[in-house]
Amino acid sequence: MAMYKAPLRDMSFVLNEVFQASALWASMPATEEVTPDLVDAILEEGAKLTENELFPINLSGDQEQCQYADQAVKTPAGFKQAFQALAEGGWLGLGGNPEYGGQGMPKMLTVLFEEMLYASNAAFALYPALNNGAALLLDSHASDEVKEQYLPPMYEGRWLGTMCLTEPNSGTDLGLIRTKAEPQDDGSYVITGNKIWITGGEHDLSENIIHLVLAKLPDAPAGTKGISLFLVPKFLINEDGSLGERNPAFCGSIEHKMGIKGSATCVMNFDGAQGWMIGEPNRGLAAMFTMMNYERLSIGIQGLGLGEVAYQSAMDFSRDRLQSRAPNKAKRSPDKPADPILVHPDVRRMALNVRAFNEGSRAFASYVGMQLDMSKYSQADQQRQHAADLVALLTPVAKAFITDRGFDATVEAQQIYGGSGYCQEWGAEQYVRDARIAQIYEGTNGIQAMDLVGRKVFANQGAFVKIFTDDIRTFMAECDGQAELKPWLTQLNQELTRLESVTDWLIEQAQQNPEELGAAAVDYLNLFGLVAYGYMWVRMMQVAYAAQDSDTSGFYRAKLQVGSHYMKRILPRTLGLEAQIKAGSEVLMAMDEADFYPA
Amino acid sequence: MAMYKAPLRDMSFVLNEVFQASALWASMPATEEVTPDLVDAILEEGAKLTENELFPINLSGDQEQCQYADQAVKTPAGFKQAFQALAEGGWLGLGGNPEYGGQGMPKMLTVLFEEMLYASNAAFALYPALNNGAALLLDSHASDEVKEQYLPPMYEGRWLGTMCLTEPNSGTDLGLIRTKAEPQDDGSYVITGNKIWITGGEHDLSENIIHLVLAKLPDAPAGTKGISLFLVPKFLINEDGSLGERNPAFCGSIEHKMGIKGSATCVMNFDGAQGWMIGEPNRGLAAMFTMMNYERLSIGIQGLGLGEVAYQSAMDFSRDRLQSRAPNKAKRSPDKPADPILVHPDVRRMALNVRAFNEGSRAFASYVGMQLDMSKYSQADQQRQHAADLVALLTPVAKAFITDRGFDATVEAQQIYGGSGYCQEWGAEQYVRDARIAQIYEGTNGIQAMDLVGRKVFANQGAFVKIFTDDIRTFMAECDGQAELKPWLTQLNQELTRLESVTDWLIEQAQQNPEELGAAAVDYLNLFGLVAYGYMWVRMMQVAYAAQDSDTSGFYRAKLQVGSHYMKRILPRTLGLEAQIKAGSEVLMAMDEADFYPA
Repeated sequence: MAMYKAPLRDMSFVLNEVFQASALWASMPATEEVTPDLVDAILEEGAKLTENELFPINLSGDQEQCQYADQAVKTPAGFKQAFQALAEGGWLGLGGNPEYGGQGMPKMLTVLFEEMLYASNAAFALYPALNNGAALLLDSHASDEVKEQYLPPMYEGRWLGTMCLTEPNSGTDLGLIRTKAEPQDDGSYVITGNKIWITGGEHDLSENIIHLVLAKLPDAPAGTKGISLFLVPKFLINEDGSLGERNPAFCGSIEHKMGIKGSATCVMNFDGAQGWMIGEPNRGLAAMFTMMNYERLSIGIQGLGLGEVAYQSAMDFSRDRLQSRAPNKAKRSPDKPADPILVHPDVRRMALNVRAFNEGSRAFASYVGMQLDMSKYSQADQQRQHAADLVALLTPVAKAFITDRGFDATVEAQQIYGGSGYCQEWGAEQYVRDARIAQIYEGTNGIQAMDLVGRKVFANQGAFVKIFTDDIRTFMAECDGQAELKPWLTQLNQELTRLESVTDWLIEQAQQNPEELGAAAVDYLNLFGLVAYGYMWVRMMQVAYAAQDSDTSGFYRAKLQVGSHYMKRILPRTLGLEAQIKAGSEVLMAMDEADFYPA
Repeated sequence: MAMYKAPLRDMSFVLNEVFQASALWASMPATEEVTPDLVDAILEEGAKLTENELFPINLSGDQEQCQYADQAVKTPAGFKQAFQALAEGGWLGLGGNPEYGGQGMPKMLTVLFEEMLYASNAAFALYPALNNGAALLLDSHASDEVKEQYLPPMYEGRWLGTMCLTEPNSGTDLGLIRTKAEPQDDGSYVITGNKIWITGGEHDLSENIIHLVLAKLPDAPAGTKGISLFLVPKFLINEDGSLGERNPAFCGSIEHKMGIKGSATCVMNFDGAQGWMIGEPNRGLAAMFTMMNYERLSIGIQGLGLGEVAYQSAMDFSRDRLQSRAPNKAKRSPDKPADPILVHPDVRRMALNVRAFNEGSRAFASYVGMQLDMSKYSQADQQRQHAADLVALLTPVAKAFITDRGFDATVEAQQIYGGSGYCQEWGAEQYVRDARIAQIYEGTNGIQAMDLVGRKVFANQGAFVKIFTDDIRTFMAECDGQAELKPWLTQLNQELTRLESVTDWLIEQAQQNPEELGAAAVDYLNLFGLVAYGYMWVRMMQVAYAAQDSDTSGFYRAKLQVGSHYMKRILPRTLGLEAQIKAGSEVLMAMDEADFYPA
């Protein structure tokens, strides 16, 4: 059956051996108390919680789904108790601001706990994930008064936050929203309008729900420059902090979705609800965007978590599955009716694909988390800016590439089961359905790719890409003495050169024709992701080569084998992508729009 | 919302313009009465039936699912009536043997009707698809007496056939089956054992169900050489052809699956059921395999059908979806709040990917159907053998490549919707779930790839591949005068050379190490499929260039644009595949089996 054990050994490898997190944390005042012992304890407790409380209600939560009746949402059996355990353990404040009761743990650590949450129960994980985002937004943009009032109960899990952006005619294009905010004499606003796809818009997990709502002031300019942000609680807050009147912010229905069925995806009707502006008038979208880097990385990690649990479950299945004989006669088990399916090269190919991406994603998500931490906490202005530039560049890659490869991982893991993978009881098909949404929400992966090529590459003429490739070349120069690493460094260098040449080509093309950016976007993001993971793998292999002599567990040996698979049997996908990108936009744009539509 | 119109114009293009089917049919006595008028009438009636009867119960069938109680299965609302319409229209005998009441239509035509069935309602389509396979098997291997008794009611849809192969410990590896057949004095057998994943093992659509069951005789040799085939009716047949006693072949439960939820996937318990042997003792698997080419092509078409309906539905959605502005200012519609999403290059990229594969798959499936017809009906021994060799080579490609690309198509079409694609009401997510199974059943796509590289390439040292590439080179030589086609011919020639070189490399490697076949299998199949579709596209473009001057509909112009997309932005994927294949098996086989399993 399905199984999940948090991959603590690999997490420790990434944190401590590849990125030497402790040294970094010790160097920054905000994180100097984050000791290795504390980190180990947090990850071990997180593993217990997710393995024992969340994973057991994952499959049942999918089958039971959220239920809607009379403006209320009932979450599946066990969700409320598990949420209590999460809240009581202080997990909702793990990365929160210590000034308001948060624990101030670095992102590089919280990404690993998020991986456990998504792996063990992706639908459940969204409730805390949205709350984290909402709390972060308030911490960045709200007044001290609002922070004092709202952040402690949100970190305690007594109140949970949501983000209310999308409307029926306004998804990717938020400039089209119609929700209105009318100023009142007391400084509050009356919010009127309908929002859709609001994760956790209504549920039975917490005593209050704090909606962060995009809306337009009466005199707002058209488009995205006329959007403001409002805090709209389900229950108004009395002066003593207790809950007061019910605010008319009601859930009208919930969606029936392909997956994440234990997550309530709500239609929210704001029917003259009282709200308070957060940040400046007409600057609401910018406020939303300051938290997007965090949320997008989190959604990327949804792809990783599901890829990880899919891998573990598929391997657990394959352990007991005997079918056919090994092609190599020496590897057969004549005492068994057939051989374990891992004797077959193609089953190994699938397993190694999944694993190479999972481990690559874990390293990459941690690397981006590390940059986020440095961009926030580093004492050196230059390092802070350097990290911020990398965060801007890498965030759309983290969101889209991890979720695309995470979805592929769940599909490939499902394939390993044969027909059992298609039957619900084994759990493999749920991972596919749950992973699929991560490619769509929080900005579709096509939008991430547009963000990458447009704002992060073209707008600065490749300056951010150069920061990244310079860092990689610095790393490579430092490796030069390591003989075993040499072929991989040579290959990585070729791929870097390819990425740089495609980047230059794209910038040049886009200067002539803005359609070239969109035409190249997704292929470029995939090329970028493959090369970035090549960098991650060479970094991991560097550590593994150095450590393998004293290796008794086989951990480093396996790391090197998975890395070799990545470099030899996955990274060459860049060859096709380069050719596809250079085919340009003309072939996409030539067809009349009418010729696309069916008769 | 979801929409489906049978793509009659494109079907006619493939049949009449690309492959000149009428001339072929006229040349073979078995098909000489298949006139263009008859074909048009069949396809038009098929379109009406599938659009009006099957498509409207597709989404509701998914939601309602098959229901099991007390050994009986209830199909979703409307399935029984739709099945009656199908049966009364004679559609179950469309490709059947005319000696027993079938209509004897060529496979090249029936593949197009099958596409309509799968596109309009994939779960429903499996009931007739399995019956077709079972009837074909009986027609090929049963005695005249059995054929006279069973084929007419199966062609009429009064009785429906199943195929009972899989057992809990025996999926891919049928040598492990345990179901037993004990001979009786009257020449019949007593069948005892349990089968799983039996499509249509029980249902309420027909008055009888005819199971074709693999089982072992008491003295059978071990493994696949000891499997025999038995006919086991749900109700025994009286001498006058009426239904007699209930045979103890009972449905124990049905699976809860990711998709095709209107298709009953049954656990079948044969509890001393009476059966009759079909064909020779211990030759049951060979008998099953004579029909596999037909069934595997049919399942390939499931991928195509779902890709087609996914495309149409996504384009219908995008017609009304306005989000953001065109990057090219000249293409903006200032009178609208935003532009239709097809102004965005990346949305076009997704749409063209889907369409290029759908149209390529339609041509390829028809091409394989044409070879099947020639292998069966051609008067010339040499042509028959030539076609049979191509069928053997291309069938695993048709099954795996069409379903893999069909699944990709449903996922990419779903992505075009944004969040709506994840909500059940739009239908897009059902196509993804329904398409997923086609990569798994009827031999997983990994098994298809093993069949390709092992039996179809390595076993004859590339002789079948040479037959195929020689045919392509003959075609290319005939095109030499067409100037517009020249760049595509040059590219196709490069890709053929690549395929030939990789084939030679693989055969050489496999002579040293049998694991090389499995290591290369899936990448090789994908490389082969991409090149084969390149051939299809160049054939289609040849016709379209010749016809475009007199084109008033835009059909040929669009065909050339989609073809250009395929050649420029899809076919280059071969570059990465070649490199991946040549990485060899070592990297896959090096890791200890134990290192794959989670701790």
